Amino acid sequence: MQNPSVLLSGPGQVAIKDLALPEITDANDVIIRIAYTGVCGSDVHFWRSGGIRACVSADAPLVMGHEASGTIHAVGPSATHLFAPGDRVAIEPGVSCRTCQPCKAGRYNLCPRMRFAADPASGTHGTLSRFFKSAADFCYRLPDGVGLRDGVLIEPLAVAVHAVRLAGILGEPGKKVVVFGAGTVGLFCAAVAREFGAAAVVSVDLLPAKLQVARRLVGEDTCRTWVPDGSLSPVDNAEKLKKECGLSSAVVDGGDDGEGGAHVVLEATGAEVSVQTSIYTLRPGGVYVQVGMGKRNIDFPIAEIGEREITVKGCFRYGPGDFAIAMDLVARGKISLDGLVTGEFAFDKAWEAWESTGRGEGIKNVISGPGA
Amino acid sequence: MQNPSVLLSGPGQVAIKDLALPEITDANDVIIRIAYTGVCGSDVHFWRSGGIRACVSADAPLVMGHEASGTIHAVGPSATHLFAPGDRVAIEPGVSCRTCQPCKAGRYNLCPRMRFAADPASGTHGTLSRFFKSAADFCYRLPDGVGLRDGVLIEPLAVAVHAVRLAGILGEPGKKVVVFGAGTVGLFCAAVAREFGAAAVVSVDLLPAKLQVARRLVGEDTCRTWVPDGSLSPVDNAEKLKKECGLSSAVVDGGDDGEGGAHVVLEATGAEVSVQTSIYTLRPGGVYVQVGMGKRNIDFPIAEIGEREITVKGCFRYGPGDFAIAMDLVARGKISLDGLVTGEFAFDKAWEAWESTGRGEGIKNVISGPGA
Amino acid sequence: MQNPSVLLSGPGQVAIKDLALPEITDANDVIIRIAYTGVCGSDVHFWRSGGIRACVSADAPLVMGHEASGTIHAVGPSATHLFAPGDRVAIEPGVSCRTCQPCKAGRYNLCPRMRFAADPASGTHGTLSRFFKSAADFCYRLPDGVGLRDGVLIEPLAVAVHAVRLAGILGEPGKKVVVFGAGTVGLFCAAVAREFGAAAVVSVDLLPAKLQVARRLVGEDTCRTWVPDGSLSPVDNAEKLKKECGLSSAVVDGGDDGEGGAHVVLEATGAEVSVQTSIYTLRPGGVYVQVGMGKRNIDFPIAEIGEREITVKGCFRYGPGDFAIAMDLVARGKISLDGLVTGEFAFDKAWEAWESTGRGEGIKNVISGPGA
Amino acid sequence: MQNPSVLLSGPGQVAIKDLALPEITDANDVIIRIAYTGVCGSDVHFWRSGGIRACVSADAPLVMGHEASGTIHAVGPSATHLFAPGDRVAIEPGVSCRTCQPCKAGRYNLCPRMRFAADPASGTHGTLSRFFKSAADFCYRLPDGVGLRDGVLIEPLAVAVHAVRLAGILGEPGKKVVVFGAGTVGLFCAAVAREFGAAAVVSVDLLPAKLQVARRLVGEDTCRTWVPDGSLSPVDNAEKLKKECGLSSAVVDGGDDGEGGAHVVLEATGAEVSVQTSIYTLRPGGVYVQVGMGKRNIDFPIAEIGEREITVKGCFRYGPGDFAIAMDLVARGKISLDGLVTGEFAFDKAWEAWESTGRGEGIKNVISGPGA
Repeated sequence: MQNPSVLLSGPGQVAIKDLALPEITDANDVIIRIAYTGVCGSDVHFWRSGGIRACVSADAPLVMGHEASGTIHAVGPSATHLFAPGDRVAIEPGVSCRTCQPCKAGRYNLCPRMRFAADPASGTHGTLSRFFKSAADFCYRLPDGVGLRDGVLIEPLAVAVHAVRLAGILGEPGKKVVVFGAGTVGLFCAAVAREFGAAAVVSVDLLPAKLQVARRLVGEDTCRTWVPDGSLSPVDNAEKLKKECGLSSAVVDGGDDGEGGAHVVLEATGAEVSVQTSIYTLRPGGVYVQVGMGKRNIDFPIAEIGEREITVKGCFRYGPGDFAIAMDLVARGKISLDGLVTGEFAFDKAWEAWESTGRGEGIKNVISGPGA
Repeated sequence: MQNPSVLLSGPGQVAIKDLALPEITDANDVIIRIAYTGVCGSDVHFWRSGGIRACVSADAPLVMGHEASGTIHAVGPSATHLFAPGDRVAIEPGVSCRTCQPCKAGRYNLCPRMRFAADPASGTHGTLSRFFKSAADFCYRLPDGVGLRDGVLIEPLAVAVHAVRLAGILGEPGKKVVVFGAGTVGLFCAAVAREFGAAAVVSVDLLPAKLQVARRLVGEDTCRTWVPDGSLSPVDNAEKLKKECGLSSAVVDGGDDGEGGAHVVLEATGAEVSVQTSIYTLRPGGVYVQVGMGKRNIDFPIAEIGEREITVKGCFRYGPGDFAIAMDLVARGKISLDGLVTGEFAFDKAWEAWESTGRGEGIKNVISGPGA
Repeated sequence: MQNPSVLLSGPGQVAIKDLALPEITDANDVIIRIAYTGVCGSDVHFWRSGGIRACVSADAPLVMGHEASGTIHAVGPSATHLFAPGDRVAIEPGVSCRTCQPCKAGRYNLCPRMRFAADPASGTHGTLSRFFKSAADFCYRLPDGVGLRDGVLIEPLAVAVHAVRLAGILGEPGKKVVVFGAGTVGLFCAAVAREFGAAAVVSVDLLPAKLQVARRLVGEDTCRTWVPDGSLSPVDNAEKLKKECGLSSAVVDGGDDGEGGAHVVLEATGAEVSVQTSIYTLRPGGVYVQVGMGKRNIDFPIAEIGEREITVKGCFRYGPGDFAIAMDLVARGKISLDGLVTGEFAFDKAWEAWESTGRGEGIKNVISGPGA
Repeated sequence: MQNPSVLLSGPGQVAIKDLALPEITDANDVIIRIAYTGVCGSDVHFWRSGGIRACVSADAPLVMGHEASGTIHAVGPSATHLFAPGDRVAIEPGVSCRTCQPCKAGRYNLCPRMRFAADPASGTHGTLSRFFKSAADFCYRLPDGVGLRDGVLIEPLAVAVHAVRLAGILGEPGKKVVVFGAGTVGLFCAAVAREFGAAAVVSVDLLPAKLQVARRLVGEDTCRTWVPDGSLSPVDNAEKLKKECGLSSAVVDGGDDGEGGAHVVLEATGAEVSVQTSIYTLRPGGVYVQVGMGKRNIDFPIAEIGEREITVKGCFRYGPGDFAIAMDLVARGKISLDGLVTGEFAFDKAWEAWESTGRGEGIKNVISGPGA
């Protein structure tokens, strides 16, 4: 049996090579036959620049891909009660060391020895292979009725679950939540916020077509949508958003609620102007979660944080329970994956998927195979 | 104008008298013309025993009633931006002192100087009058489409909101929640748990008719129902419940979840055997909330608490945000009040409502008026 | 009796006028004869610019001062069990509305109707008068042995208590805390962090004399001190700080703790370069509290927040319990106020205290009187 | 080399046998040469009854001991950066599975596959051997100046750290804490509460000699001690305690604090009457932690929990960070272990240590060796 794999060795330097077949070495290992790998913005970054912080190189070419689904091919001896060959799974693409302090304290996404798929920092190969080795407890069974192709969406959904859980004040009052960005992760943030009790969710994006998807995914009764005015400053856009989406100060029961604004903002674009607008959109005591990634440094209205006692939370990948919750939401039909995969590309044309994603086409592109 | 009121002066000692009209003395006061007062188990207790901890007496007869709705009759000068005469409201029946440490720290339900309706301890009259004085920030506007009669249900719904918020681990993973008791408060606990993200809700009661209401209120997709077997011990009933309702240990993804059981139990009966069964139903690390009230002392499996690191939370009335959240859930149509008020009694026959409730008839009985 | 008061009506426009005597109008009011008023950086700002966000003006001159101590002069009828004339108190300088949602939910520092001393936004006069009216529950008895002059320090100590409580992860593991700035608030942050269980506290300042005070206040066994190198970038200074103060990655027990760094940084300068260095000093998962105030917008390393899942918390004044905790720490001798008041100025020369503070002289300047 | 071990095979059925030498099979394993093993109440239970829930038997005799110190004898290949032969360590006596949901979510003490020393449920041998195998990340280096004999006390100190962290509201206000029981764990609970910011700690025990140790360990300035009156009911003892130890309602600043009582009770005896007294000692909103173990079922004042919204927390062993914090407190001299080990017994007379402990002699008995 062979193990064809898509390796990147520098910006635009891609090749398909036949790598050694992975073998079960730990009793908890599983080997998965990859069905689909989704494309995310970081893949485009790798394709164009060779990496984000650490980079691939000719000396250390790396198999790409980290959003993947597949079928179980082999199971280590201590995981046979969990999986059998043929089981269809979504894959959580990082396996943590399990012994460091963050791992033991419930924050394995901060593990300094994390082996994350397609991450040059740890030299861990990604999922664009015929076979991929993971740990049984980082695989999640797809429910009947959810196809392998849609299964790649569990990864960005888990990102959204992690972000909404970090926001923390959900499941408490019926909160008003604003999500900047209606790409895959932003859409899922909006849908998860609704599931965890948000009273109102405002989805913000420049593209009306994306906002239409938000309305469908989140539901007309909870979802409002809003397009920023490119000619306005962040302060003015925030005021406009609050006014037009029912977030301004108002007579409310149980005592005035002060100057109004969002209880929670989830920022899923990473764009500087969007971050700034987000902060001005929050009410005093509000919570901001930085989900998107953009420039390393930005002009930031720090005085707003202090004077209105706002909390800003970084958000990195996913931790304990996030994939399981994501899968549960899909299994119970609370979040539909239908229609979100909008493009499929062949394994030996993986770079075309990256190019398409780089041009902003569709919602989620996937790469199939390579198949049996 | 007159102010006819239903006063209790001892067990079974009831009279209707015309009390002085309440007057606005604080700028934040409002006076409400009462439309309906709901009956709860504590009223039955008062009617039969004269009180719970403190008792009414011939020297200090007390107006009964604490679940009420009505229309605003008069508004203090600093609350005119909040309410105008004729506004339809549900009433939060306690006004706290606002200056003690619990009040300032966000736990006003623990205020030692709370003036709670129909509470002999503070000598505060209840709502079974034509006019009732409260504070503007303890009144909550009823949405269009919710009648004054159903408005009395906001109070028990707020009890449920408080209980579910105390459980605390909702809005986090897709939790499995068991609610013991399907009276008004138990029904609402089940529905609120679903709204705040519970993955599964099991409603437990001896009466199948009540469980049918639970299924309707919570929804078939999330709600399971279960009837305890009176011939079994609490340990055996808990095992049976877990097995029959899908709470037993099972192969789950993201790592084994151990010995199984509920993540959260909300106990809304107060019955000793139900408390015991609840504790055995929890998984290690689970959270138990004591919503119902029963005997002062019970036989309690304390070793289970320690060995499985369970958290037990007392739950007293409602605090900041609970009424507002309750109203928001109703206003957005997330929780329907339809069909829960099952009996209506005339003001001058209030004791017949107490008798009917004492016999366990229907779900929620209300007393109307006395009207204009 | 007269009520001489120091009023500001614009930048550098100060006058002493005799205002009307305050009167008890609410049953919970108290009137305090002011003994001392401390000077903080915001006073300097007012003196030089006429305000911060809102400004004083000739039309609305405002009595300055918000850090104050004094003796009770008169007590409202419902507070006589709390205070009697002659009691020596420190004053919490804001009285909240008590009825809005933030007030009821335990965050009165976010009250939109807060009446804060010397705040032009609400038009509330400050403490630089012979008599000042407050509410009984916002006054705190000075313990025997703590003089009225030192009593003005309870206000900045309460700021520090609020900041350390916001950091939240204290009282948990034996955390490593870095405090940027060794002015009054920074010094107190370091001392409070030690009292709440910090395993190590690093005090950072450019002036070695201030760091010597930090060592005395915090104690040699817990406190380390460090002076930034003005020729290095924030990234390099952070690396140097971590290396020289024992915060680098190291072999630790209970599992590797990853890349090292501070668990908590309290930034008490507001300086842009200090904020940047702070963020780089944190470990993954760390918590940053913005205590100091500086420019409204800064260049901010936002990618660090995301990639290392850092939490940034704004910190505004003080809330429930902060003054009481501050006073308790002083009363039990845990934090000594000795030697921190370094300059005293006469009431009719208040501006000289502002000038002196503006020149960075000493630690805390106070204005006495005006006395009887 | 031989591996003499103390095995129990039933109540009073003890033998010393030479077991196989443990070998490094996982890269993270370490083998420790045991120096001392401490005796706790559960050992007495095993000696007298053969076990607690699961029991040893002639078919499955088990090496006893779980509080131990020793020197590193061998180190697995992936732990050589952590330990070298000869390093002196305290041992955390359970190694969790690292893959189940509780392990990954930061609650490994709830791991269903925990291998805990001397636990018949998992068939894991204890520390009363010459050599004991553990995992490198469950060993903790003893600081210079702390002897191996005192090193066994890190285990009960970690129990106390876990309990105080569970109490949760420490490191917040300057809380008033009551600890029932002044055995090793109770003493440590009192000392840890002080270190995490308790304003006052009341140590309760029937034996004045133990309370004297509490005063020495906690410090005269923070510690109060109290002896219950055996002739009084729990309610009356609680009132007496509150009155005599300064926990009654009182005039306090920042607003009345209501009916008084302890903010936190840590119950470290497990005795029914002590649990009952504890609950009555708490103030509304207080937190109770069940640290001690006693009867499986007790008569419990559950109405107090509801009416005063008390939180009751079970407390099971220790989790992430607890041993590291315990060691840090000792290393920084915050908690002294001097004089707490009061009896030493030879390895081949281990049962005499159990007998002595069963008779309540001294504070902590240890068993030495067996040595080289």
